[in-house]
Amino acid sequence: MTLKELSKAELKSFYDEQMSLLEGFKKKGLKLDMSRGKPSPEQLDLSNEMLTHCLDGDHISENGVDCRNYGVLDGIYEAKRLFMKMIGVGRWEIIIGGNSSLQMMYDVLAKAMLLGVKGSEKPWCKLEKVKWLCPAPGYDRHFAICEAFGIEMITVPMLSDGPNMDMIEKLVAEDDSIKGVWCVPRYANPTGVVYSDRVVTRFANLKPAAKDFRIFWDDAYCVHTLEDDAPPILNILDECKHAGNPDMVIIFASTSKISFPGGGVAIIGASEENINFMKAQMAYQTIGYDKLNQLRHAKFFKTYEGILEHMKKHRAIIKPKFDAVLEALDREIAPLDIAEWSRPKGGYFISFDSPAGTAKRVVALCKEAGVTLTGAGATFPYGIDPEDKNIRIAPTYPSLEELKAAIEIFCVAVKAAAAEKLLAE
Amino acid sequence: MTLKELSKAELKSFYDEQMSLLEGFKKKGLKLDMSRGKPSPEQLDLSNEMLTHCLDGDHISENGVDCRNYGVLDGIYEAKRLFMKMIGVGRWEIIIGGNSSLQMMYDVLAKAMLLGVKGSEKPWCKLEKVKWLCPAPGYDRHFAICEAFGIEMITVPMLSDGPNMDMIEKLVAEDDSIKGVWCVPRYANPTGVVYSDRVVTRFANLKPAAKDFRIFWDDAYCVHTLEDDAPPILNILDECKHAGNPDMVIIFASTSKISFPGGGVAIIGASEENINFMKAQMAYQTIGYDKLNQLRHAKFFKTYEGILEHMKKHRAIIKPKFDAVLEALDREIAPLDIAEWSRPKGGYFISFDSPAGTAKRVVALCKEAGVTLTGAGATFPYGIDPEDKNIRIAPTYPSLEELKAAIEIFCVAVKAAAAEKLLAE
Repeated sequence: MTLKELSKAELKSFYDEQMSLLEGFKKKGLKLDMSRGKPSPEQLDLSNEMLTHCLDGDHISENGVDCRNYGVLDGIYEAKRLFMKMIGVGRWEIIIGGNSSLQMMYDVLAKAMLLGVKGSEKPWCKLEKVKWLCPAPGYDRHFAICEAFGIEMITVPMLSDGPNMDMIEKLVAEDDSIKGVWCVPRYANPTGVVYSDRVVTRFANLKPAAKDFRIFWDDAYCVHTLEDDAPPILNILDECKHAGNPDMVIIFASTSKISFPGGGVAIIGASEENINFMKAQMAYQTIGYDKLNQLRHAKFFKTYEGILEHMKKHRAIIKPKFDAVLEALDREIAPLDIAEWSRPKGGYFISFDSPAGTAKRVVALCKEAGVTLTGAGATFPYGIDPEDKNIRIAPTYPSLEELKAAIEIFCVAVKAAAAEKLLAE
Repeated sequence: MTLKELSKAELKSFYDEQMSLLEGFKKKGLKLDMSRGKPSPEQLDLSNEMLTHCLDGDHISENGVDCRNYGVLDGIYEAKRLFMKMIGVGRWEIIIGGNSSLQMMYDVLAKAMLLGVKGSEKPWCKLEKVKWLCPAPGYDRHFAICEAFGIEMITVPMLSDGPNMDMIEKLVAEDDSIKGVWCVPRYANPTGVVYSDRVVTRFANLKPAAKDFRIFWDDAYCVHTLEDDAPPILNILDECKHAGNPDMVIIFASTSKISFPGGGVAIIGASEENINFMKAQMAYQTIGYDKLNQLRHAKFFKTYEGILEHMKKHRAIIKPKFDAVLEALDREIAPLDIAEWSRPKGGYFISFDSPAGTAKRVVALCKEAGVTLTGAGATFPYGIDPEDKNIRIAPTYPSLEELKAAIEIFCVAVKAAAAEKLLAE
């Protein structure tokens, strides 16, 4: 029986039951966290070897660079080779950076504001207004960067195969103050959407009014499949070149969820001309990134195929967690017909849409019962979900046991909030 | 006999002799490099243990942080404790950053331009003009950051105990577009000058017209003494607090020349309010820096005293190199009375003033003979040494044998250029 089919009295009794269950959880004083996309300690153990004997007595790169000393702005070659295939670029089309792709996105955008990108007539901070397209639900930290710089965010709805391209094509063609767009092309954060070929080619063929428009292609989950066969995705740089827009895309990635978050390496991919332009800007900022950590990664993974093998071990740990969440939602929520959620084939999140107007309430009820979720609204620009329904579930960090306890509480909170809303109607 | 005492004929024969010596060097096809302040491989070997067993099976900080995972924006506590004493700040007055203090300086200035510093009425990029005081000779990469951002540089002469403070006090009081000053307070790059107490207190007591004026205090060589007893220097943050200007200074340092250049950690020190302001800005840029590398450093050095002990090993390697350069200059150049040079008690450089109008020529002659020096002029804003006389000698990287060969050639080049100039007068 779905929730809507219940009589008012039945609904009231259903609601009371959920609230009393929540009261019971509250008394247990639990502390469960499904808020951030963090690998679990077990996952981190997979790369421990990198921290110990990986560099024993050998810190010279294959090109003869002493990785302990200054130099090599764009990274050592064996690290480039490792990641070229991962993000689909050539050897002159890559920079190996520091420990954070978020920082590289921030830095590229900061430099665009202060200095401009290749082809800019002037630094963007000298323009009256800068706008950015934000497919949503999306990644809160992307939106936060725009907010920091006072860039006006325009929300674009996410569809099942990528952002609404009709809307994007129209907007960028009309408004030259729109300078860019955030994309997470495979296993989008939080929806898990994989961009279709049609979406990728439409991105590559955009005709923006702003000649220095940039697609920020955050390929954060490029090797983070939860299935045997990862879905193929078109190569955005190739497509952009083919469309005569070679400089329009900047690809970002990192090993934060491959090796260590905060202890990994970040990667930028772009056309050779774009890379050279960015390197010339970067040369004022740093003499070089941490080559020792680059060498650690190259020695540990050896090849791109080595990364794929490594990701299978991650998958063995996290797939059961995704399954546990989906199993609970299917069992507890599906029969009530009150909510929808993603069944991601990769990435780090399950995107959950509770009844409109209840997401904040669900998060609050969970909090009281000892379960921390990402704040409702976080997946939208300015933290405002217009329908107050999207909740991002991050199942990777807790142990399977903790996760099962947390999702049980989550389901009760969703039921309570849904019933509460129906009762108030 | 000094060079000026020679007759024209004697001078000509002296000149010919030097040029023929240079011709001889040229034929040898040498490749010697005294251009950058880089530690030698021997120095880097001192920290090799940090790359291997340092983190064996233990990546949890003493506060229970798993350093392999996300979090802790301002760095782990044991790293803070290690460096607090080094730069003279308290536990709430420090941020442990990434691998490059240069990058942190660039980033703080970029954020000042885009967002403003604590107390700014508006971001500096919204001002008509931003100016910066540049004591010179100084560090070329400092000046390059100003150049990148279009900040107008004002050269301030370096005196024997620090920059010309009369000039600085006057300029900052008069002109509110002057937003800051570069300082390398001990063993200044390249002069080796150690700021006197008087200079430090005058900095702390500046009364800038710009309410958001900042002293960028790059304490790059804080533990890099070449003597048994390092000269004491007043604590700039204490002095600023005492003067009622607690937020005026930002201290930078790194372990680039303690552990590994590019593989070390960078440090920011400032008042607690300043630190909190900067952390709030940084939170948009990154989730955190590489805590594994912070832990490596904390475990390897253990205490500040451990760092000082480590620096004695560096000194044992580099002191003989400084001595070799000074010995050659004293022997070959001093009797001719044509040049002056520093006798640094720490740091990484010897600052050499050749006869006015000859620095470029000396560098070019050296280059032809196989010796690379930092480009003449690099130590001045915009790369322009008004007197064309300052040359920065970096003796640390070459082996002692190579260095002796290089400085021999350098002395001949100085003699040739000096004679050439006298002949042309």
